[in-house]
Amino acid sequence: VATFKITVAYEGTNYVGWQRQRTGVSIQGLIEDVLRPLDGREVVVTGAGRTDAGVHALGQVASFALNRTIEPDALGRALNGALPPDVRIVDVERTAEGFHARFAATSKTYRYRFCDAEVVSPFERHFVWHVGGPLDVAAMDGAAGVLQGRHDFAAFQAAGGATATTERTVTYSRVTRVDDGEIRYDISGDGFLRHMVRAVAGTLVEIGRGRWSRERMREALESRDRRAAGPTAPPGGLFLVRVEYRDL
Amino acid sequence: VATFKITVAYEGTNYVGWQRQRTGVSIQGLIEDVLRPLDGREVVVTGAGRTDAGVHALGQVASFALNRTIEPDALGRALNGALPPDVRIVDVERTAEGFHARFAATSKTYRYRFCDAEVVSPFERHFVWHVGGPLDVAAMDGAAGVLQGRHDFAAFQAAGGATATTERTVTYSRVTRVDDGEIRYDISGDGFLRHMVRAVAGTLVEIGRGRWSRERMREALESRDRRAAGPTAPPGGLFLVRVEYRDL
Repeated sequence: VATFKITVAYEGTNYVGWQRQRTGVSIQGLIEDVLRPLDGREVVVTGAGRTDAGVHALGQVASFALNRTIEPDALGRALNGALPPDVRIVDVERTAEGFHARFAATSKTYRYRFCDAEVVSPFERHFVWHVGGPLDVAAMDGAAGVLQGRHDFAAFQAAGGATATTERTVTYSRVTRVDDGEIRYDISGDGFLRHMVRAVAGTLVEIGRGRWSRERMREALESRDRRAAGPTAPPGGLFLVRVEYRDL
Repeated sequence: VATFKITVAYEGTNYVGWQRQRTGVSIQGLIEDVLRPLDGREVVVTGAGRTDAGVHALGQVASFALNRTIEPDALGRALNGALPPDVRIVDVERTAEGFHARFAATSKTYRYRFCDAEVVSPFERHFVWHVGGPLDVAAMDGAAGVLQGRHDFAAFQAAGGATATTERTVTYSRVTRVDDGEIRYDISGDGFLRHMVRAVAGTLVEIGRGRWSRERMREALESRDRRAAGPTAPPGGLFLVRVEYRDL
C-alpha cells in the first residue's frame, strides 16, 4: 500500500463542495472517480477541509492509499488528464502510511475577499462578495484581531455543525485593503467550525458598513450565540488557501 | 440627441464576440437590447474594437446616441442592472455629438497572456494560453520589438480581413514574464488587422519554444504572407486593455 498526499486547487462555483454528496458533483467525488479504475477498487480520498458549495481552494490537501505502485508525478499527470480544468492537482507526494490529511493538519488558512467598489470586475464576479461600500477597513481589522487566541467560537458555528468542542485556536486574523475595491480577510487556525469563516466575514461586513461598532465582535464571541453574530457571507468570496502539517 | 461614450469590461468566454451576430449572443447585442426599450427605438452601439468570440476586454470603448435625456451615472446603473455580471459598464460619459468610438480612437492596447507552467491555475483557465514550456522570454521579447514602427502587417492578417490598407503603426510591443508561469505580451498601436494580435502571439510562441529563431518574426513581417507567420493563438488569452482618444 502506498499513501499519497495531494494538493488541489479548484474553482468551487460549479460544485456541491469538496465532499461527495448524492445531490451533485463534488471535488472529492471527481478525484475518487479517477482513482477507482486506476487502482481497480474503491479509493477513499480524505480532504483536510470540507469546503462548501461555491467555495474555492488554492491549496486544499487530501490523502488516500493505493494498492498500485505509481510515481507521484505520473499520478499527478493521470489525475490532471482526467479531471476537468476547474480542478487541478498542483502537487503529489508519497507520504507515510497512515497519513490522514484532516487529522494530521496543524494549521489551515482561509481567505475571504470583499469588493466594495461600485462595480465588480466581470473577472472577479465568482470570487468576491460585492458589498455596499465603502467598508471601514480599520474597524474591520480591529474587530478581526479580537478572534486571535484560544476561544469558544460557538457564536460562529452554523446549525448542524456537531463537534465535540467548539474551542479553537486562531493564530492570525487580519483585514487589509489590497486594491481600490478589494479587501481581504485572512485567518489561520488549528481548526474551523462549520461556516465559521463565513459567519465571521458576515460580522466583519456589518462592522465595516458602520451598522455595528467594532466591539460587537467581542460581544458576539463571548455570547456563544449564533444570533449575536452577523449573517453567513456567500460562499464565492471564500478560499481555502493552505493547510500545514508537522514535518512528516 | 445626446451622445455617450461607455467603457466596458467583459469576460468573452460565453459570447460570440463584441459584434452582433445571428449565431449567438454578443456584447454589442446585449447592450443594444438594454438601450432599445430605454430610448424607445433601435440604438446602434459602435465598439472601438471588434473582439472575437472568447476574447476579453478590460476597457472596450463604445459610442451611441440617445434621444432621451439621462444622466451618465443613471445610464451606467441602468445598464449594469440589466446586463449579465460577465459584462460590466465601468464608465459612462456624455460626449460630443458625432463622436465615433472606432474612427476617433488614436491608440488601442491589447494584452496576450501565456502560461508555461506545467499546470494552469483553475482560476486562469479561460484567461491564458497554456503552452508547452518553458518559453524563452528574452527571445520572444526580441522578436516582439521588431514589430514596433510603421509596417505592412499583411502577414498577420486573417483571411477575410478586408481593409483598404494593411499598414499600421505599432508604438509598443514587448514580452515580459510577470510570474512563475505567466508571460504577457503587450502591444499598442493605431489600429489592428483581423486576428493580428493572435497571429503575432502564435508566432511568438514558436520562437519562445525554440522551434523558430527570433529572426523569423522579421522574415514573416517582410514576407507579407500569412503562411510565414505562426498559428493564430486561441482567443481566451487575449484582452482588449484600453482605447485612447485625443482630448475630446
